[in-house]
Amino acid sequence: MKPINRQVLLASRPDGIPQAEHFLIAETPVPQPRAGQVLIRNEWLSVEPAMRGWVSAVANYSEPVAIDAVMRSFAAGRIVQSEHPDWPVGTPVTGLFGWQDYAVVDPSGIQRRIEETDLPLSTALGVLGINGVTAHYGLLQLGQPKAGETVVVSTAAGSVGSCVGQIAKLKGCRTVGITGGETKRQLCLDRFGYDDALDYKAPALAQRLENACAGGVDVYYDNTAGEISDAVMARLNVGARVVICGTASVSNWTPSPQGPRVERHLLVKRARMQGFVIFDHPDYYAGARADLAGWLREGRLEYVEEVLEGIERAPDAIAGLYRGENLGKRLISIA
Amino acid sequence: MKPINRQVLLASRPDGIPQAEHFLIAETPVPQPRAGQVLIRNEWLSVEPAMRGWVSAVANYSEPVAIDAVMRSFAAGRIVQSEHPDWPVGTPVTGLFGWQDYAVVDPSGIQRRIEETDLPLSTALGVLGINGVTAHYGLLQLGQPKAGETVVVSTAAGSVGSCVGQIAKLKGCRTVGITGGETKRQLCLDRFGYDDALDYKAPALAQRLENACAGGVDVYYDNTAGEISDAVMARLNVGARVVICGTASVSNWTPSPQGPRVERHLLVKRARMQGFVIFDHPDYYAGARADLAGWLREGRLEYVEEVLEGIERAPDAIAGLYRGENLGKRLISIA
Repeated sequence: MKPINRQVLLASRPDGIPQAEHFLIAETPVPQPRAGQVLIRNEWLSVEPAMRGWVSAVANYSEPVAIDAVMRSFAAGRIVQSEHPDWPVGTPVTGLFGWQDYAVVDPSGIQRRIEETDLPLSTALGVLGINGVTAHYGLLQLGQPKAGETVVVSTAAGSVGSCVGQIAKLKGCRTVGITGGETKRQLCLDRFGYDDALDYKAPALAQRLENACAGGVDVYYDNTAGEISDAVMARLNVGARVVICGTASVSNWTPSPQGPRVERHLLVKRARMQGFVIFDHPDYYAGARADLAGWLREGRLEYVEEVLEGIERAPDAIAGLYRGENLGKRLISIA
Repeated sequence: MKPINRQVLLASRPDGIPQAEHFLIAETPVPQPRAGQVLIRNEWLSVEPAMRGWVSAVANYSEPVAIDAVMRSFAAGRIVQSEHPDWPVGTPVTGLFGWQDYAVVDPSGIQRRIEETDLPLSTALGVLGINGVTAHYGLLQLGQPKAGETVVVSTAAGSVGSCVGQIAKLKGCRTVGITGGETKRQLCLDRFGYDDALDYKAPALAQRLENACAGGVDVYYDNTAGEISDAVMARLNVGARVVICGTASVSNWTPSPQGPRVERHLLVKRARMQGFVIFDHPDYYAGARADLAGWLREGRLEYVEEVLEGIERAPDAIAGLYRGENLGKRLISIA
């Protein structure tokens, strides 16, 4: 066992998107589990857009990470020392173990024992983790797509968006992805099966969206807000559902950015716009995960991972997401 | 019977809010019903904010009123000549009979026979008409208020808003009305039973709203959009429902006015924002009307009417609504 636990600490609080300079890497002794606890060796650390909110001092759905605390994150690893009879050494587990090599936790701090041992451990953080469950809940519970409807997804090639697009396709919808750059656009078409895909960085998005959605938009799964959403909102069909999952295109909400008011679209189109936070729905996870694992095993659900090697890549990793530089689910490998 | 039918025609198409100059009054012979038809003498003509949309050339939920056609409106009156056995002379009826003294219609053009003959005929256009039904549907079906929750209503003293506030109160909610001017504010408190009422024209609305809704806002019944809504959106509670019923504060949607983006509020507060058009729900009317008539007879529901005397008041009547000059349901008496 390594004697040192490398930890990524929040060094200062960012105004907007956390940058590398807001973190520092500390080396501390590997902690020892007390009675009833286990020691976990993390193998994969997750990087999520939502982590911006977790370090924000602005009122939010979770307590902000404290200064000098280990950065909150999902991780997947294995139990390497156990003082609890139900959690033997070698058990693969996932939970909010933080950006660090090792974590000592009570069993209540383990989100789950990873049962899908036929699938890569890293899937517990992406397609079988909150990304996949978020896609499943937001699309099916709030978006409520019906076969034949048109579903538009922003950040279409991302870990949530790619899953949304594929589930919508499995449900018989026409899918249109919006993503940044030609590489991701091709990924949307080639790997994630979108019927059409648009690069928001290219000119005339509104016109291209109109061409891609000649029959209008029935469900908009929104991970970006901003000008991308403005273009989509103008194309809603009567009875459309807009799922607010993230606001990746907005770098700072203080003061609030301005945009075209949405009320008239919602009124004239009798449309619904609804936000959600997946952590409100823990009872939903197992069923959604069973669906997702089933689709994975049947080869009906694709996922793409981008692996950063080494914990020293962590401090800049969130900023990189917002720069749009990742292709697929961003993970840090520290095994 | 008067030999002349005075009609208010749409003379030109307004860009935004229809003004007196967009209409003209014509005098034509009283039409004669053919077999199966009836002749109705209108006694009350309705004036609604929604009529702005009915004359708009911009895509909408209804076909725009044609140039030189009689202005579409709800009216209440009595059958004065009948060529249909089921619809005897003297029957009180309501429907889209237009801004005119007389209308010849097929029975399919009659919205309903007015059954509440113990109540004033004019109530068929307000509290027992689309205003009351709109309030009932929007609040109870979309707003879904629970006892003890805080419900905020914009245009709180209007024909829809006053009904929303009172129904919310009947359901055990705390009600806060937003209205324009001290007279309407007092009306909200004295007649419509709001727990608090705010004049949006006075300074520091956001601060006064914060004081009035210290526990946050659970349901926002929005008839205005614009800056009033911006203040309310910033006070939403987790799980809040925003009902988009009208956009009275926005004089023109082309180009779209800008405002603070709402996505972050919806996301962080897991809130829902939903538009509706009551004409989508004709099967809902009778049940809602029965509730409303019951509350009226029990003295639990108040309404205020503002009566303009004579059809020559019609052309300026919609513009006056948007100037906020009316107190209560605006009606034109032509009996």
